[in-house]
Amino acid sequence: MLVDKKHFKLQGFTTFNGCELPEVNIGWESWGELNANKDNAILITHYFSGNSHAAGCYQQDDPLPGYWDALIGPGKAIDTNRYFVISSDTLVNQEPFNPLVITTGPASINPATGRHWGLDFPVVTIRDFVGVQRALLASLGINRLHAVVGPSMGSLQALEWAVAFPDQVERMVSVIGMGEADAWTCLGLQQWALPILNDPHWCDGDYYHREPPLAGVQQTVMQISLSAMSPEIINRTFYTHYPLEPGPLQDIRSQHRVTQRFMQDCLEKARLADANHLLYLIRANQLFLAGHGKTLSEGLQQVQARCLFLPSKGDLLLRSGLAWQTHQLLQQLGKSSEYAEIEGSWGHLDGIYSIQTQAATLQAFLER
Amino acid sequence: MLVDKKHFKLQGFTTFNGCELPEVNIGWESWGELNANKDNAILITHYFSGNSHAAGCYQQDDPLPGYWDALIGPGKAIDTNRYFVISSDTLVNQEPFNPLVITTGPASINPATGRHWGLDFPVVTIRDFVGVQRALLASLGINRLHAVVGPSMGSLQALEWAVAFPDQVERMVSVIGMGEADAWTCLGLQQWALPILNDPHWCDGDYYHREPPLAGVQQTVMQISLSAMSPEIINRTFYTHYPLEPGPLQDIRSQHRVTQRFMQDCLEKARLADANHLLYLIRANQLFLAGHGKTLSEGLQQVQARCLFLPSKGDLLLRSGLAWQTHQLLQQLGKSSEYAEIEGSWGHLDGIYSIQTQAATLQAFLER
Repeated sequence: MLVDKKHFKLQGFTTFNGCELPEVNIGWESWGELNANKDNAILITHYFSGNSHAAGCYQQDDPLPGYWDALIGPGKAIDTNRYFVISSDTLVNQEPFNPLVITTGPASINPATGRHWGLDFPVVTIRDFVGVQRALLASLGINRLHAVVGPSMGSLQALEWAVAFPDQVERMVSVIGMGEADAWTCLGLQQWALPILNDPHWCDGDYYHREPPLAGVQQTVMQISLSAMSPEIINRTFYTHYPLEPGPLQDIRSQHRVTQRFMQDCLEKARLADANHLLYLIRANQLFLAGHGKTLSEGLQQVQARCLFLPSKGDLLLRSGLAWQTHQLLQQLGKSSEYAEIEGSWGHLDGIYSIQTQAATLQAFLER
Repeated sequence: MLVDKKHFKLQGFTTFNGCELPEVNIGWESWGELNANKDNAILITHYFSGNSHAAGCYQQDDPLPGYWDALIGPGKAIDTNRYFVISSDTLVNQEPFNPLVITTGPASINPATGRHWGLDFPVVTIRDFVGVQRALLASLGINRLHAVVGPSMGSLQALEWAVAFPDQVERMVSVIGMGEADAWTCLGLQQWALPILNDPHWCDGDYYHREPPLAGVQQTVMQISLSAMSPEIINRTFYTHYPLEPGPLQDIRSQHRVTQRFMQDCLEKARLADANHLLYLIRANQLFLAGHGKTLSEGLQQVQARCLFLPSKGDLLLRSGLAWQTHQLLQQLGKSSEYAEIEGSWGHLDGIYSIQTQAATLQAFLER
């Protein structure tokens, strides 16, 4: 299944905290055909380090397809013979320097000044991600979603859709998700921000014409990657690891092979990422409370969609208890909510790599 | 129960990696009386951020006693009416600037140069911690331990004692411990090192006459603290946390109250710590393989002591599976090993704060 990245330009957008963006540009992809009634659309909302490339390949010889290719395609659980499936790059996407990402954030040019936004870019929230998606859908004449489905940070967007625009969402699927960022999650996310904040090259976000804070970004990427994986997968990948390697035993500056290889992988990801975008993404997640109101209950009270929660059993980042709590609250409020756990050995990333184990659950949910 | 810190000076010590230390100074504490046969000694080995203050108070009005005061004392599970209980500060202790710690490491003066060791200090291993303890015990005429008991990094020392000096250890108790640092643990520990390595004030460890890398140390302390706790405890402590606080919503540089308070607590701990000592401690843990040989099995084959493993069920740092694996290996080798899990809500720190729930198990084990 081939796909290409399209470009959506939005003139004028007011953020949740009341700031005006004169212009927003985001990339998007789609699979399948929109029907005449425009009522067969499924929106896929992407995870923290991801983008709208959820399925298919750009070229026949791409080494890998989009991240949920096991789920999305002709005859698959999210069947592109039936549904028009669409996904867009979020605001402040982690990788503005990835040629396959189109996003607007601190690394973009502020049309008012002709310079990079930097920290003049307003703090954005998950509600803003949803707002931009809503404008994209409106531009295509789509007013109502058959479903919105997303993993991890994508689950925050999916739930926010169901809470903020309840009459536009028929089904909501939260994969490896949560309903609000608790104190623990806020602090965990702050750990991802600190390497950038402490990097002297960060310069209060004003580094676009000098050396960027690459070491900080590399460390942040390492933390994100490790949080999303499981001990089992790391140990299986580095199965020849030996604790008493001669180099590290003799010199405190020498690193174990596992560290060298992992850090090298993170450096490659870091080169596509932007430090400020990471800080803004982290903040959007820290600020998350479905409904953006006083309490989670108050938000969930708005939901009209049928809901499905698919956390990962071995998740160390967004523990299954966070999804369970939201599911329980919805049921107490008399809403329709279902819950099933993904099993696998990847930890948080089972929401991506083991999603096919819940494909039948998801397919049945979408068809009911 | 009152206690005071004593000072042990050792002339000449050869490290596991073959370097010579002309002089080692460490602090130690003891509770109870050594009997005439000198065969009633129990050694307590301390955790990463701890020191030899395992029980009792320095003064009647100390706000808190030593960390395992619930376990150690007259009539308690480790009964100071029967046993001579002793603990010592490790080499490269995290807090050389804590007036109640005596340690030798990169922040100490190298007698050969009259300057701080810095990175000229040799990389040390858990075996070296044990070697210094052994010299301290020998100076008191103690050749055989009734038991060695330690939590977390202390469990590494306890197991290393049983493997390296099997005829000197009758009982070994590993609390929230592991048998070797796997690839996952190596990378997790590296995350603790990176904030220091990336801090421009670190200067390859040569900062003793300038501004120290305090921001890096603060971030390292934050990571250690969060790893050792559970989501439940953090959320209970910061139960009024609200994700959409106005400050962080308006300004990316503004932090949530929970972050501010947590970082402030970490800053206070960071002022007592030394960046190089932290790096050396991290490395000692990364290098750990009980027996310091080719494989864990090879090491455990040496054990003569009866062993008891007490991991914490909710531990996110040293998962109970690590203790279970070591316990299983010992049993397969025909050794005597027992296993029980500590229950509580603290995560890793249940090995400290909920240890009394296994006090009876421990007491029975020590008396058999």
